[in-house]
Amino acid sequence: MSKIVVLTGVPASGGTTVTRKAIAQLETQGNPFKMVTYSDVMLDEALQRGWVQIRDDIRRLDPQKQRDLQQTAARTIADMATTPLVVDTHATVRTPKGYLPGLPTWVLNELKPDLILVVEAKPGEIIRRRGADKSRKRDVQDEQGIQEHQEVNKAICMAYAAYTGATVKILQNPDGKLDEAVQELMLTLQAC
Amino acid sequence: MSKIVVLTGVPASGGTTVTRKAIAQLETQGNPFKMVTYSDVMLDEALQRGWVQIRDDIRRLDPQKQRDLQQTAARTIADMATTPLVVDTHATVRTPKGYLPGLPTWVLNELKPDLILVVEAKPGEIIRRRGADKSRKRDVQDEQGIQEHQEVNKAICMAYAAYTGATVKILQNPDGKLDEAVQELMLTLQAC
Amino acid sequence: MSKIVVLTGVPASGGTTVTRKAIAQLETQGNPFKMVTYSDVMLDEALQRGWVQIRDDIRRLDPQKQRDLQQTAARTIADMATTPLVVDTHATVRTPKGYLPGLPTWVLNELKPDLILVVEAKPGEIIRRRGADKSRKRDVQDEQGIQEHQEVNKAICMAYAAYTGATVKILQNPDGKLDEAVQELMLTLQAC
Repeated sequence: MSKIVVLTGVPASGGTTVTRKAIAQLETQGNPFKMVTYSDVMLDEALQRGWVQIRDDIRRLDPQKQRDLQQTAARTIADMATTPLVVDTHATVRTPKGYLPGLPTWVLNELKPDLILVVEAKPGEIIRRRGADKSRKRDVQDEQGIQEHQEVNKAICMAYAAYTGATVKILQNPDGKLDEAVQELMLTLQAC
Repeated sequence: MSKIVVLTGVPASGGTTVTRKAIAQLETQGNPFKMVTYSDVMLDEALQRGWVQIRDDIRRLDPQKQRDLQQTAARTIADMATTPLVVDTHATVRTPKGYLPGLPTWVLNELKPDLILVVEAKPGEIIRRRGADKSRKRDVQDEQGIQEHQEVNKAICMAYAAYTGATVKILQNPDGKLDEAVQELMLTLQAC
Repeated sequence: MSKIVVLTGVPASGGTTVTRKAIAQLETQGNPFKMVTYSDVMLDEALQRGWVQIRDDIRRLDPQKQRDLQQTAARTIADMATTPLVVDTHATVRTPKGYLPGLPTWVLNELKPDLILVVEAKPGEIIRRRGADKSRKRDVQDEQGIQEHQEVNKAICMAYAAYTGATVKILQNPDGKLDEAVQELMLTLQAC
């Protein structure tokens, strides 16, 4: 089993972009990381079982089935980690009944992450990025809401760390400093 | 087993009031929730065992006995959840030896909550409400102390969520906005 | 088994100094606490096994060996707690791959702490204290970095509390108020 890195951040924090760039540069240095999106693996599993037709159906499944998919996906992902792997997911997801943990213990027990990345940006920047991205339908959330979400994410990532022993890296990804964020992430992944 | 909702908030956050009103309105909509106070169930158990005479005796019991009561009460409460149940308790309790977790793992293992509510208000509002309520003897605490208590509560609720998979809803209950808080809580409970 | 108190704080928070003074005063009152430094116990174990020559070698061991040392040290320390014991350690350690938990579950399962102390000071004070202490080589860190470290430490200590049931005491140790901090710690240890 190789290293497993969990990538988290509120929507539009830019974590996926920063990580893709860092991975591309590490590749040229002979240090290859693969990347997988947690929800894609869950969707594949749900489609195979005939439980859903489209991605949005997953959130309408009963909680026990969602938990089952979540755990099966964690096992599938852990099996994929024959080389270092970054798992793109969420620390928590905002739902009508509150913040839903993305990595509850039954997921952590399978994934056994070595490093948890928390990518952050200023709430105002997050809002502007969400507004600029017309390709995705995202909840409207004010600065205070985004700040709260980033705070609960940071707190729950520390709980994930306590449970697993994983390190937690908090990476700032402010506007206009993409290269710096990529550099810092590369150093972190190299140390992992 | 039906849904279990854990209700938390520092003293005078107003969580009990908001929840009673939300439950009353949900009742008229044919969506009944029951409510139980954790410390009442612990007290009943302690009285039955002859360990205490009055509520205040509980905190003077040795820690092992307190833990035993806490776990037995959790089991009793879980058995009560034949219909949706709100459990009124505390994320942490301030004690002379620091913040005591209200829902350590041996409680969570029994309760298996689906939703954890964190009711908050501004520290200045909390202080005024505490001053206005002459019926209860409460510790005097300054704004910074209340802010710290609310922060540690939020953090520990995220740890409870990581451990159980429960969602966490943070509900603001500011002065003069009771109806709005009740409405938001109703939506949250309906989604649960 | 007697009480186990875990002492944490970022470097130069002054926790060790405050605790030594509190223990000295409690001793004169016939309430003796011993104190042990977690990393010293790990080093002893690593030297005995011939894994390292000096302290700095420990961080270069592979993670599985570090974890093994960490767990063995926890067991050794728990066995030392025939009288009340303060364990001087870190909530998290800053490493190139992020914040490393000092008390992951495999340590907590052995230590079973009763109380977790979190000693804090203002970031500006921490920086001045680090600058004044020429005897130790410490990472340069700005105020924002120290604030982040203190925040993640507080959050992870709440996760440790959720897992173990330990109380958490947050102790402010500002410049010029050492006696007050010592007094407050004495009251906390007496209550433990």
